[in-house]
Amino acid sequence: MATLGEIAAVSGARLHGGDPAMIITGVASLDHAGVGQLSFLTHPRYRHFLPLTRAAAVILSPGDLTACSAPALVADNPHIAYARAAALFESVAESRCGLHATAWVHPTAQIAADAWIGPHCVVEAGAIIEAGVSVGPHCVIGEQAIVGEASRLVARVTVCRRVRLGRRALVHPGAVIGSDGFGLALAQDGRWLKVPQLGSVWVGDDVEIGANTTIDRGALEDTVIEDGVKLDNQIQVAHNVHIGAHSALAGCVGIAGSARIGRHCMLGGGVGVAGHLTIADRVQVTGMSLVAQSITQSGVYSSGLAVEPNRLWNKISARLRRLDELFRRLTALEKTIKRQDGSV
Amino acid sequence: MATLGEIAAVSGARLHGGDPAMIITGVASLDHAGVGQLSFLTHPRYRHFLPLTRAAAVILSPGDLTACSAPALVADNPHIAYARAAALFESVAESRCGLHATAWVHPTAQIAADAWIGPHCVVEAGAIIEAGVSVGPHCVIGEQAIVGEASRLVARVTVCRRVRLGRRALVHPGAVIGSDGFGLALAQDGRWLKVPQLGSVWVGDDVEIGANTTIDRGALEDTVIEDGVKLDNQIQVAHNVHIGAHSALAGCVGIAGSARIGRHCMLGGGVGVAGHLTIADRVQVTGMSLVAQSITQSGVYSSGLAVEPNRLWNKISARLRRLDELFRRLTALEKTIKRQDGSV
Amino acid sequence: MATLGEIAAVSGARLHGGDPAMIITGVASLDHAGVGQLSFLTHPRYRHFLPLTRAAAVILSPGDLTACSAPALVADNPHIAYARAAALFESVAESRCGLHATAWVHPTAQIAADAWIGPHCVVEAGAIIEAGVSVGPHCVIGEQAIVGEASRLVARVTVCRRVRLGRRALVHPGAVIGSDGFGLALAQDGRWLKVPQLGSVWVGDDVEIGANTTIDRGALEDTVIEDGVKLDNQIQVAHNVHIGAHSALAGCVGIAGSARIGRHCMLGGGVGVAGHLTIADRVQVTGMSLVAQSITQSGVYSSGLAVEPNRLWNKISARLRRLDELFRRLTALEKTIKRQDGSV
Repeated sequence: MATLGEIAAVSGARLHGGDPAMIITGVASLDHAGVGQLSFLTHPRYRHFLPLTRAAAVILSPGDLTACSAPALVADNPHIAYARAAALFESVAESRCGLHATAWVHPTAQIAADAWIGPHCVVEAGAIIEAGVSVGPHCVIGEQAIVGEASRLVARVTVCRRVRLGRRALVHPGAVIGSDGFGLALAQDGRWLKVPQLGSVWVGDDVEIGANTTIDRGALEDTVIEDGVKLDNQIQVAHNVHIGAHSALAGCVGIAGSARIGRHCMLGGGVGVAGHLTIADRVQVTGMSLVAQSITQSGVYSSGLAVEPNRLWNKISARLRRLDELFRRLTALEKTIKRQDGSV
Repeated sequence: MATLGEIAAVSGARLHGGDPAMIITGVASLDHAGVGQLSFLTHPRYRHFLPLTRAAAVILSPGDLTACSAPALVADNPHIAYARAAALFESVAESRCGLHATAWVHPTAQIAADAWIGPHCVVEAGAIIEAGVSVGPHCVIGEQAIVGEASRLVARVTVCRRVRLGRRALVHPGAVIGSDGFGLALAQDGRWLKVPQLGSVWVGDDVEIGANTTIDRGALEDTVIEDGVKLDNQIQVAHNVHIGAHSALAGCVGIAGSARIGRHCMLGGGVGVAGHLTIADRVQVTGMSLVAQSITQSGVYSSGLAVEPNRLWNKISARLRRLDELFRRLTALEKTIKRQDGSV
Repeated sequence: MATLGEIAAVSGARLHGGDPAMIITGVASLDHAGVGQLSFLTHPRYRHFLPLTRAAAVILSPGDLTACSAPALVADNPHIAYARAAALFESVAESRCGLHATAWVHPTAQIAADAWIGPHCVVEAGAIIEAGVSVGPHCVIGEQAIVGEASRLVARVTVCRRVRLGRRALVHPGAVIGSDGFGLALAQDGRWLKVPQLGSVWVGDDVEIGANTTIDRGALEDTVIEDGVKLDNQIQVAHNVHIGAHSALAGCVGIAGSARIGRHCMLGGGVGVAGHLTIADRVQVTGMSLVAQSITQSGVYSSGLAVEPNRLWNKISARLRRLDELFRRLTALEKTIKRQDGSV
């Protein structure tokens, strides 16, 4: 619960037409909001709900104000304002500290006095858990790994030996940080010999790592995830990858070894990035595209193909296989015409 | 072990040419089946094995009966008949109830008397485990989560706080249900601010969730998986997605936020679905296709491209980059011809 | 620490220009190596670092020797030589044996005397853990599963009932071996009936399985992973798949049911393989390609499309949708020209 005035203060929005003392009890979308609930408009797709909403107040941008009959909280960046306001309504898990009775902690591990190690956790020799850290149930913190100040490992996170997580990391269930890279040398007889993976993973501050995402340790130097990077679920980050600060990667992205991704990049869901290439700062790649070579200019890039009815698609893809022939036939025709033009 | 007569009764098939008292000891494919084993034919691909099989009996459709020398169990839907028959030969895990000595259960959690909580499980405050539920080793059931009647969590499943699983759910190892959605607001300085994920996940009855599949909680309202939905392994379901009843999604599918998938849909392996769109009922999408816009008609849709020899493919994809030029050249040529036709 | 002479002996390389007694303290890349560190050159991409490296010695191929000012370890296959040398510098986890106090082991499980069962592990009834096996924290070994000699399960690995892992397996965190296949029969009313998955998984010797990779058990016969197969992270292997010896699959590959992959194959990241097909030996498939039909000849295959600037791509993909029209227009034009040619 919070008053409209408190919400305005926290969100940095200007209250327009509402009573600052009004009590708000929760948050809901424009079409579902009811008595006492706060809503927001951050995408034009939902603007048509605005005149009819029963929300007690709506966070919106100045341009949408006239269309809103409810009291408004006006912000230049309503998405940011909403994010701040919504945090007031989050049911924060009770803050705990100490070691749960079922956790197993090696005597040489260092656990800050106000950190929490949850049920059935394992903290190996020499690991360091800094102040204010919350380690949820079933996490494994490997030897000499470091979990930085105020980080939160939700549950069942594996942090392998010598991995370093920065401050305020938020890691979701099933994530694996520091698994071996896929380093193999091919012997003459066609067998694979494992190349020892001697590096580790270095994760900056304010990084979020999604459920079942995997980040491999470097072969020699560390795999690096810079400050403020946000990784969604089921992302695969191979060894020696470097992801620049404040880049955001959507679900199911796969990044091959030694790729270097710039700062403030955005990769859509299912994007693949080949190994040993460089992507410049502020590059956006749309969903299910393949980055096979370096990108040196910021901008938006794509190679995903959208569905068609299967019959049409079968025709298209059969034709596609003959595209080279098509070019050659066209070129031949152009020559014929040219000759004719000359002869006519 | 079961007799042919029992199998006929359970599977709903008509016995044709065999002794109902014959004892069947197991199940095998047509080419591997031997003495005392039951087999089946559900796909024409394997029909050529039929005349030669040494199976004691074969479940098949009426049209395949004449080609079968062995005793037959004839069913209009032999796949369904087989599924029922095979269940007789499943080595069912010994039914257990109670709490394993190593499980940790919060005193306020409610566990049905006949439910089983396996080794090293964690059940948090206020969680409800209904009658007949089996929670395998290493599962985490979050605060106020509900696991519906007769559900089975095989092992190492994470059910986050306030998630609601319906009756007879079957969840495989590594699945994460209720992780935070990837909700981020972009500040002017290029940093990301987390948008609190206040919703949860609502899963209907008879839902199967594959190994290492992840389902994010809603940002405001719940992510919804309706009755009878079947999710294979390593599927990613983003926040606020809605999957209609009896849809089946194959491995590695990724669904972006707020997408709405109809009932009785089938998505092939590796399919990607973009956010904020709607897919009608009874839509099929073939493997590795990208649904980038709403689909309003039932039917089969595709955008996957199949491999060619690499050299040919390199030519094709180089040509593809010049497809716009090709169209323009062709149009120019058409005009030239028309002019010539006029002038001739 | 090792001397240059020891490294030469272990790696099978010929020392050229260095003191065999020189002590090497670590390994680093050509551009980062400093005093006392060993480096290597296995890819021409990094050859320009060779003249300037400060490495104490460099493993390289005979052809690169003249360009190297540092002492050299010359090998015909420098990647293999490096892999062997680097193993000398791996910080090997302290060898442990016995059961950790927090592990739970069923009385009927058989654990070799020199095996190690780590914190919070669960070993179910009838499981067999052979000699020299190391089971890291949070692993679950199901009923009657077998973990072969000298295998290492790093942490949080789930081996389901009756799965058989060969010798020297290396399995990374979050892997699930033996989850149910996605076997469903479609009833007339549009509901799905589960087909019991009665087979298991058979894994040969010297297999590596990456983090969060999933391997489903067979529907009837076993899913088979032959000797020497290397699976990267987040790979999905469906039921009844057969992967031939010494094949290597990169991250995020998905293989549908009953596909049969040959020996010595290499599948790039994100490749999809459709079900019920066969891939010959020594086939390579480049990243994000779709194998939709059997491949009978060894060679390199592709269907991935690389990104273009988004505007250009939108044009291309719009044109692609009209590719059939394009072919028809071209054919019409060719006929017109032919007619003209005849008439002129």
